[in-house]
Amino acid sequence: MPQFTAPLRDMRFVLHEVFDAPSLWARLPALAETVDADTADAILEEAGRVTAQLIAPLSRSGDEQGALWQAGKVSTPGGFRQAYATYTEGGWVGLSGNPQYGGMGMPKMLSVQFEEMLYAADSSFALYSALTSGACLAIEAHASEALKNTWLPPLYEGRWAGTMCLTEPHAGTDLGIIRTKAEPQADGSYAISGTKIFITGGEQDLTENIVHLVLARLVDAPAGPKGISLFLVPKIRLAADGSLGAANAVSCGSIEHKMGIKASATCVMNFDGAEGYLIGEPNQGLAAMFTMMNYERLSIGIQGIGCAETSYQNAVAYARERLQSRAPGGAQCADKAADPIIVHPDVRRMLLGMRAMNEGGRAFASYVGQQLDLAKYAENADERSSAAALVALLTPVAKAFFTDNGLEACVAGQQVFGGHGYIREWGQEQLVRDVRIAQIYEGTNGIQALDLLGRKVVGNRGVALRQFTAEIRRFAGQPVAPYAHELAEAVERLESISDWLIVQAAGNPHAVGAASVEYLQLLGYTAYAWLWARMAQVAGSRRSEDEAFYSAKLATAEFFFRRLLPRTLALEAGIRAGSTVLYEMTPEQF
Amino acid sequence: MPQFTAPLRDMRFVLHEVFDAPSLWARLPALAETVDADTADAILEEAGRVTAQLIAPLSRSGDEQGALWQAGKVSTPGGFRQAYATYTEGGWVGLSGNPQYGGMGMPKMLSVQFEEMLYAADSSFALYSALTSGACLAIEAHASEALKNTWLPPLYEGRWAGTMCLTEPHAGTDLGIIRTKAEPQADGSYAISGTKIFITGGEQDLTENIVHLVLARLVDAPAGPKGISLFLVPKIRLAADGSLGAANAVSCGSIEHKMGIKASATCVMNFDGAEGYLIGEPNQGLAAMFTMMNYERLSIGIQGIGCAETSYQNAVAYARERLQSRAPGGAQCADKAADPIIVHPDVRRMLLGMRAMNEGGRAFASYVGQQLDLAKYAENADERSSAAALVALLTPVAKAFFTDNGLEACVAGQQVFGGHGYIREWGQEQLVRDVRIAQIYEGTNGIQALDLLGRKVVGNRGVALRQFTAEIRRFAGQPVAPYAHELAEAVERLESISDWLIVQAAGNPHAVGAASVEYLQLLGYTAYAWLWARMAQVAGSRRSEDEAFYSAKLATAEFFFRRLLPRTLALEAGIRAGSTVLYEMTPEQF
Repeated sequence: MPQFTAPLRDMRFVLHEVFDAPSLWARLPALAETVDADTADAILEEAGRVTAQLIAPLSRSGDEQGALWQAGKVSTPGGFRQAYATYTEGGWVGLSGNPQYGGMGMPKMLSVQFEEMLYAADSSFALYSALTSGACLAIEAHASEALKNTWLPPLYEGRWAGTMCLTEPHAGTDLGIIRTKAEPQADGSYAISGTKIFITGGEQDLTENIVHLVLARLVDAPAGPKGISLFLVPKIRLAADGSLGAANAVSCGSIEHKMGIKASATCVMNFDGAEGYLIGEPNQGLAAMFTMMNYERLSIGIQGIGCAETSYQNAVAYARERLQSRAPGGAQCADKAADPIIVHPDVRRMLLGMRAMNEGGRAFASYVGQQLDLAKYAENADERSSAAALVALLTPVAKAFFTDNGLEACVAGQQVFGGHGYIREWGQEQLVRDVRIAQIYEGTNGIQALDLLGRKVVGNRGVALRQFTAEIRRFAGQPVAPYAHELAEAVERLESISDWLIVQAAGNPHAVGAASVEYLQLLGYTAYAWLWARMAQVAGSRRSEDEAFYSAKLATAEFFFRRLLPRTLALEAGIRAGSTVLYEMTPEQF
Repeated sequence: MPQFTAPLRDMRFVLHEVFDAPSLWARLPALAETVDADTADAILEEAGRVTAQLIAPLSRSGDEQGALWQAGKVSTPGGFRQAYATYTEGGWVGLSGNPQYGGMGMPKMLSVQFEEMLYAADSSFALYSALTSGACLAIEAHASEALKNTWLPPLYEGRWAGTMCLTEPHAGTDLGIIRTKAEPQADGSYAISGTKIFITGGEQDLTENIVHLVLARLVDAPAGPKGISLFLVPKIRLAADGSLGAANAVSCGSIEHKMGIKASATCVMNFDGAEGYLIGEPNQGLAAMFTMMNYERLSIGIQGIGCAETSYQNAVAYARERLQSRAPGGAQCADKAADPIIVHPDVRRMLLGMRAMNEGGRAFASYVGQQLDLAKYAENADERSSAAALVALLTPVAKAFFTDNGLEACVAGQQVFGGHGYIREWGQEQLVRDVRIAQIYEGTNGIQALDLLGRKVVGNRGVALRQFTAEIRRFAGQPVAPYAHELAEAVERLESISDWLIVQAAGNPHAVGAASVEYLQLLGYTAYAWLWARMAQVAGSRRSEDEAFYSAKLATAEFFFRRLLPRTLALEAGIRAGSTVLYEMTPEQF
């Protein structure tokens, strides 16, 4: 059974030492009163306790039992209800929510650490509240004050849960062709009718009510993505006094049988003239939903890091204990029948690869969290908009790069176990199954890459990208920056390819899609290089304070630069091959 | 539900057009009478029918039901018994077996095509007979004539099945520390006692008897790998007249719950003084077992290709039908709500990547099969030993490279389906779960890489490697060879890195293990480059005969060289980073 221990020391390293988050918080009025270093540490500590002790022990039994559907009702696995009650009592659902509606108002930079722990403990459990947080954001950003006052407090409190209802059987990536319809009613509400699939937590037994955010078309809406509106559709309608009233015409037709996240109910939801309330303006639903999507995309990215962290911890523990063969240079434990497999270079290569990508990811998630906090709380409008531009640029990278690396790390962690990694007992195979969905949902990683290269880079002719690379160049330009040469080379490569792609895209509609996935990875490795150089700088300056901890950071940085960053060479060559090689065959020739 | 159609046209292309196998068969006396082009085609056609129509339909229900253990008995899923009976009646188990003992004597080059179809249809089903074929080889190569006459015919016939019993709870990769013991009995047999785990098909209800090949230690054996002997231990002993007699002291204690290949029973086997018969010489068991292991390694490699082929076929079918968004250059199917996703560059990138690696793998498996046939049947001793050297060099590459690419292709095929790839219904997620084991069993891919670089390259100072690269250089040196420049560059890179590693290994015990996995992949990509150039040469020369077929080959070759071969750049850089970066941390620091 997998063990998870919250990596608190590593998280404090990133938050306090690399990014000096407490100083930032102190200068942002909305956060200055709310959080400081001690508060943050106390929250992390408690989060570590809750996730490792309350939630992680449910992961395997949750996978084995799965969510069950019977006659329209969904039961979560044994222990989930009690754990969810304890969890919501702790206020975790509203950790970074708006205090005006009952949230705790904590910075995103802190909550990304918490989200990592939550996914590390159990992805299925995490999803039930992850969507609630996202739904709250969309409601807060776009709904009327009346809707906010009614629906946000019980959501932040965790008594009710949120969902996002986008996909239909014929419409996944392409939301422009959805068919669910909304008919205006005399009382100002709308009657929502249609079928949605792949609805995470569409039905469950954890909360008293469920608040569905549903994309639908008004009867007179224009065709395509500009005719979609967003509605709040509760499972149970509210009586005049705000208490739970009659059931709405919303039902769960079945749940999916999936590769993993089996304890998370993935529902087919039928809306049969259900009562719903318009959020924001008519036909502006996609934009409103994207407030939620962008939040979820970072969160789902972090699922990749969380699963990978648990896989890493278990692989290290196994590699230290499993005795098999002798070290290449001669026996290390001559008193035992064999040496622990952590002596072998290839086992170390796998472990260091996981470690370097997980810690790089954690730093990147924290950086995006920092920019989210700045975009929300900075006093200066320029600072807010500059941070928002970085968030827009980096969110698809976080979602796709974290989860691609998450799968790679979980597969590596399984491989360290040999045959024992393939059987249920050790939990490594569950992590592979659970993490795999994160590359698919919330917009496939291919779609993230199109968003990045098409909209965020080519779309603004590289302005946001230059803003980001300028920050890296500033770091690399310091007289004492570690890995300055490698960083400069990596940034040069990224910029030069970006420029080339902007030119290509002007004359070739396939140029973006042909390069996008490799481009996203190239940007990801370059960003991690910058973050690893920053971490190495801090570790180098503090090494004498804690030799074991900081020298491990330096060793991992070195591994990243020597063994992983060179992957950009292949990515560059793949991108420069262009799109022609993709279009030499007709669909029939495949 | 996944569909599989045997890729007969592609297989004939490789066999007849690229390798001209019938000419080779005609000049090898043992094969000249047995097989020609027409026989081979008829066998392939029938194999395609059996695998696609008899076996493939059992794959999903087999996964859902799984193998069941109750009170020591194992039941295979519904339909397996009848299908296995039909399958063995067709003589497929002994397809390339020795005719002297009831085999069909077909060339390995043909049977690798069959194996691919079998794994493509269902990995679990395939395993029941794959191990039988391997056991037969080991018995034939090392057992006494009496044992051969007794045990081989019913095995080749498929009435009985074979297993390989190596792993023990504390001993997987490190077979030197196994504890199962063998005590000589007065009648010349041995009493075998011990526990073996991860025994594929250790118990099942498909065959009348099961023949376990068991590694054990004689009571007076020296410690370590040189004290291991190989025994044949039947589930049911034979009466004096050769009919089935009393049960042996062999029992199945339980089966594993696994990520995939759920219809394949993975057994804990207990030997309690079971009657066994020595195969070959005492203390020479590992070498004898390696006859089986090497056979299985190629077979398991082919599992990677087979699963990937099914994943590809389904992904292409889905990509042609699923309508979602418009082509980047404008609507292709203006009469529909959206275009089929095969118009999108990133979908094509995934499909072409699968295709290029699957077809490269098929050609490589066929080449190794050809060398196996030469090693076995060539009249000239030099030709035999030269082929055997190539087999030794390339078997670990086949096992690891096919299966690493198999996972990559199955994950890509799942990704093409978006959310539908993650649910059970379409079968893509099962392929990911099923193929994953192939990177682990029969020696993990890390162990294959060590075998390749340590034993097969550094161990003979690159002699076998030069033999292989000389063949590539001969091809690239032709005046009209396609991709001659790219091939020359790739071979140059491989040879230069090999030379460098041979020097490194002399002074550094970690040099081999630090580079081995990337080295194996580098060799794999280089070999595929050669094979794709050969395929392109044939396709180019025949293009006018079947434009659609051959131009697709040329397009896939072009994709391979432009988008995939550049991965060698990153592999080279990773290798040259050396081993120091792996040893800067103590085990506690991880």
